[in-house]
Amino acid sequence: MELHRVGIIGLGLIGGSIGLDLQAKGHEVCGWVNKEENAIKAKERGLAQFISTDPEIIADCSIVILALPLPQLIEPAKQLINALPINAVITDVGSVKKPVLNKWRRLHPKFVASHPMSGTIHTGVEAGQRKLFKNKPWVATPDETTDNDALTVVKNLAISLGSDWITTDAETHDQAVALISHLPVYISASLLKSVNEERNNKVSTLAKTIASSGFKDTTRVGGGNPDLGVAMARYNSEKILETFTTYRASIDKFEKMISHKQWDKLKQELEQTQQNRSNYL
Amino acid sequence: MELHRVGIIGLGLIGGSIGLDLQAKGHEVCGWVNKEENAIKAKERGLAQFISTDPEIIADCSIVILALPLPQLIEPAKQLINALPINAVITDVGSVKKPVLNKWRRLHPKFVASHPMSGTIHTGVEAGQRKLFKNKPWVATPDETTDNDALTVVKNLAISLGSDWITTDAETHDQAVALISHLPVYISASLLKSVNEERNNKVSTLAKTIASSGFKDTTRVGGGNPDLGVAMARYNSEKILETFTTYRASIDKFEKMISHKQWDKLKQELEQTQQNRSNYL
Repeated sequence: MELHRVGIIGLGLIGGSIGLDLQAKGHEVCGWVNKEENAIKAKERGLAQFISTDPEIIADCSIVILALPLPQLIEPAKQLINALPINAVITDVGSVKKPVLNKWRRLHPKFVASHPMSGTIHTGVEAGQRKLFKNKPWVATPDETTDNDALTVVKNLAISLGSDWITTDAETHDQAVALISHLPVYISASLLKSVNEERNNKVSTLAKTIASSGFKDTTRVGGGNPDLGVAMARYNSEKILETFTTYRASIDKFEKMISHKQWDKLKQELEQTQQNRSNYL
Repeated sequence: MELHRVGIIGLGLIGGSIGLDLQAKGHEVCGWVNKEENAIKAKERGLAQFISTDPEIIADCSIVILALPLPQLIEPAKQLINALPINAVITDVGSVKKPVLNKWRRLHPKFVASHPMSGTIHTGVEAGQRKLFKNKPWVATPDETTDNDALTVVKNLAISLGSDWITTDAETHDQAVALISHLPVYISASLLKSVNEERNNKVSTLAKTIASSGFKDTTRVGGGNPDLGVAMARYNSEKILETFTTYRASIDKFEKMISHKQWDKLKQELEQTQQNRSNYL
């Protein structure tokens, strides 16, 4: 693979992890961060060779990765837009693609909307780690305005980090992530809320004492980063609300099987969900 | 601790694990299993010193543990009832306590209803493992008919396996497990059902391809043992149906915050659930 000078805007979990991997592949990495303290920490951790709070740092880059939280990505600062080299390939890592693409296809001719699907519970400049993307999906959502050569550049970069490259349209992406990534946050948070709002004190105290691995797993994403949970809801609300409707229908069916004592039917359903899960996880 | 001759009825995950730990503590363990093939496997694995499909095997035991699935526990076979030594302390490991206690307090004078709260995804005679109960809750639900000395015997046994001993009433237990152990199965299964019933083929195919660790965790218990999912529903349906009502109210609140674009409120709620979870997990 051709060696690049790659700019990364934001050196949090995703940006920092990309920075570590790209350097290991021989690329030159320039990181632009918002605060001096983050620049210092990112330098200590070696997340990029060159790190600054000055946008000038990305001036000579041939690829720039916008590794920013959704709000800064969807409502980008003027300073950010002006700092991007016109000839560079630009890509993002946002978990919602339609509003990103709608915004950015007007802002830069070589913008490629993409979403590396890797995560840990950690965030910030301390979170970046090697090989975060290995064997994980990296979804790109090109449309008719997307530059084909730019798409190939991003594809090669994703593949060089070990990702499974997938392309689809932004609409399909946003619907799929609403279902498997965003909805789980709210159904998991709802479970925590239900335990917390249990009015019988004896029950709620015992519940909290005996909560075990099953509860821990089911509530993990509902106890995650609140800012991320808000950003998803904000920028993918239409698709998420559709999944609430589907989900409520499923919940209602299970409730009905239980209240009507349809044990054979319940068993069939649970056999089905067991089978489904093992088919694709 | 005094050494006992302990009978275990059923050498699946829980029974087999108890058998392994008790032998390591110097007790004599007698296992009664339903099928010859299970007896052979259980012998190979050393789950008990004496193993048979003949109920006579438990005749001289001073403690007998009913490590049976809920249906066999709540509707016990005559052969089982007749085989229990009248002077032995009897306990069970069922995940629902009220129907168990209602049944068994009439069947044996030294019955103690209890529930060791440990699990893995494995079941059957191959599943038993050492130290399954270490630092895990073991909840007993005595009532006014429970023999105090028998309760102490079960308590000492649970503590000797490293469990955290908790006593409460059966009603409170069943409500708490409905909330943190049973409800999660159906909300998790509902998520799998929603993905499976997604009508847009492109979306459902992509969703299955990119489903990641968050989805995996949230759906783990919904992809578990169907028989267990049915047994919980069957024997704890009243409490489970109450939790559906509470849970739906929580889901509705999250949906409303999203549809009304109440981002500050949503952030507060997610901060709350994040805090709650870290407080007790």
